[in-house]
Amino acid sequence: MINKLVDKIKKTEAPIVVGLDPTMKFVPEHIQKKAYAEYGETMKGAAEAIWQYNKAIVDSIYDLIPAVKPQIAMYEQFGIEGLIAFQKTVDYCKQKDLVVIGDIKRGDIGSTSEAYAVGHLGQVKVGSTMCRGFDEDFVTVNPYLGSDGVRPFIKVCQEEKKGIFVLVKTSNPSSGELQDRLVRTLEGDGGQGADRPIYEIVGEQVAAWGAECMGESYSYIGAVVGATYPEQGRILRDIMPKAYILVPGYGAQGGKGADLVHFFDRDGLGAIVNSSRGIIAAYQQEQYAKYGAENFADASRAAVLAMKEDIAQALAGRA
Amino acid sequence: MINKLVDKIKKTEAPIVVGLDPTMKFVPEHIQKKAYAEYGETMKGAAEAIWQYNKAIVDSIYDLIPAVKPQIAMYEQFGIEGLIAFQKTVDYCKQKDLVVIGDIKRGDIGSTSEAYAVGHLGQVKVGSTMCRGFDEDFVTVNPYLGSDGVRPFIKVCQEEKKGIFVLVKTSNPSSGELQDRLVRTLEGDGGQGADRPIYEIVGEQVAAWGAECMGESYSYIGAVVGATYPEQGRILRDIMPKAYILVPGYGAQGGKGADLVHFFDRDGLGAIVNSSRGIIAAYQQEQYAKYGAENFADASRAAVLAMKEDIAQALAGRA
Repeated sequence: MINKLVDKIKKTEAPIVVGLDPTMKFVPEHIQKKAYAEYGETMKGAAEAIWQYNKAIVDSIYDLIPAVKPQIAMYEQFGIEGLIAFQKTVDYCKQKDLVVIGDIKRGDIGSTSEAYAVGHLGQVKVGSTMCRGFDEDFVTVNPYLGSDGVRPFIKVCQEEKKGIFVLVKTSNPSSGELQDRLVRTLEGDGGQGADRPIYEIVGEQVAAWGAECMGESYSYIGAVVGATYPEQGRILRDIMPKAYILVPGYGAQGGKGADLVHFFDRDGLGAIVNSSRGIIAAYQQEQYAKYGAENFADASRAAVLAMKEDIAQALAGRA
Repeated sequence: MINKLVDKIKKTEAPIVVGLDPTMKFVPEHIQKKAYAEYGETMKGAAEAIWQYNKAIVDSIYDLIPAVKPQIAMYEQFGIEGLIAFQKTVDYCKQKDLVVIGDIKRGDIGSTSEAYAVGHLGQVKVGSTMCRGFDEDFVTVNPYLGSDGVRPFIKVCQEEKKGIFVLVKTSNPSSGELQDRLVRTLEGDGGQGADRPIYEIVGEQVAAWGAECMGESYSYIGAVVGATYPEQGRILRDIMPKAYILVPGYGAQGGKGADLVHFFDRDGLGAIVNSSRGIIAAYQQEQYAKYGAENFADASRAAVLAMKEDIAQALAGRA
């Protein structure tokens, strides 16, 4: 699946993933009204609204981009009905031949991570039958529990030819509270001797796990590093030369095209940049207001094209 | 809800939470057969099997214990149908007046953690209507993203009088890879000067968050500390004097009654010990084999009583 992702990035010339994170305040009123008229102001009504919203956006942009990243929390907040909309969104995007990165940030003790891994990437045994749950192509994984919380995901990825992105340095303002802490290095750490921040230690782990999991040019064990921390991006690019980097935090969270260059290799590969509300709620921004709420999906298309241009310029202009 | 939990622990004299983590290999064959006869070897069949299994166990033990802890991964592996079984289990346990701790280990950037918090503990706005999703009483939270990934949960807990348990030192063998790393302390850390392990730093954070969130005698911001690390339990008990400690790892993972004493305060409060397969799959252990698979729920009841006795003896026998 990492090979497919890289191929699609080359073909679309867009190292972009669109975050399908449908907060209700992004969903145009006419879509909400129609859904509530049909199902009432219920979880089912909400789920119908976010599904119709997603579908229109995907229909408008699927030819421009390699991948989407639905954030499961935005569906889980609407309970079972919301998760049905998540499932429909995953399935629909796969029909459109998009690579689907489930942003689930799961991670637990070994036996429990195994359940998440089979539920989101693999197959679970029911009697003598193998069944698939959510069936994304990639998922994001939290490393706080250490390697036995991550290895079950790796095992399923090996079987299924899928992949993960491990949280290394997240885009949010308080990510440094733990991730930037300087730790004493141990034997076996790269750069032994000096103290190093936790994100580097986790980056080293990602590189080590990834070495066992190579696709053609990149590993299918990738990393999440926020656009809001470009300097750390540069360091982590070096520490994990074979890891694809999933870069959130572009646009609404403050990351700019110029901040992104260090996440990429010289050939413009090695990173994929996420934008969520910057694309899916583009119609609410002044710049795209002319489209109006009715044509929100056209505004999203224009925003994808602008983002593609912004990144291409930044990569072309780097020293 | 922390007051209710403490009251129920006092009333049952059982600082015990039963982990409802229905791996299919624990579910007796007669239950699986019946479910597959009705729904086929499908996700719906699997979900029916784990729901009937849970229900029988809960019916057999609900009067002995204060709380249950369903691990959502064990349901999520069966996709939407599994999550419907999770929802039914949560609702049923609440009907039985059990405190429900959703073991979800979620945690993300602020806006996303907010979605998880409302989906699992609070209410989400749909049009002008407020709706509830999974509606557990407590959930577990992952701290890797720092305080802005945790605060949305705290906010919802304050509104809803619910609570969280933050992962501090998990029970699994590799938990030390990150959590035990020695970090340089900063101004504002307790015990400034010396290097300290990450779990202590997170423990300090839990204590600080918890100070704003006091119930009658304990805070509703608790912590997860594994029974498999008794020495760390002792230290963390001191660092977080007002935090209830949720202690996984007893029984199947290797933790023993004698290991638990340091997690408790002198009056026998302050900690609640989880056992999952040790209770729900008791009938598969030699000790309870006499019950047979047909009477698995009776075996679970006997295992709860034995666990209660084991902990009581350990607490009575401490120096």
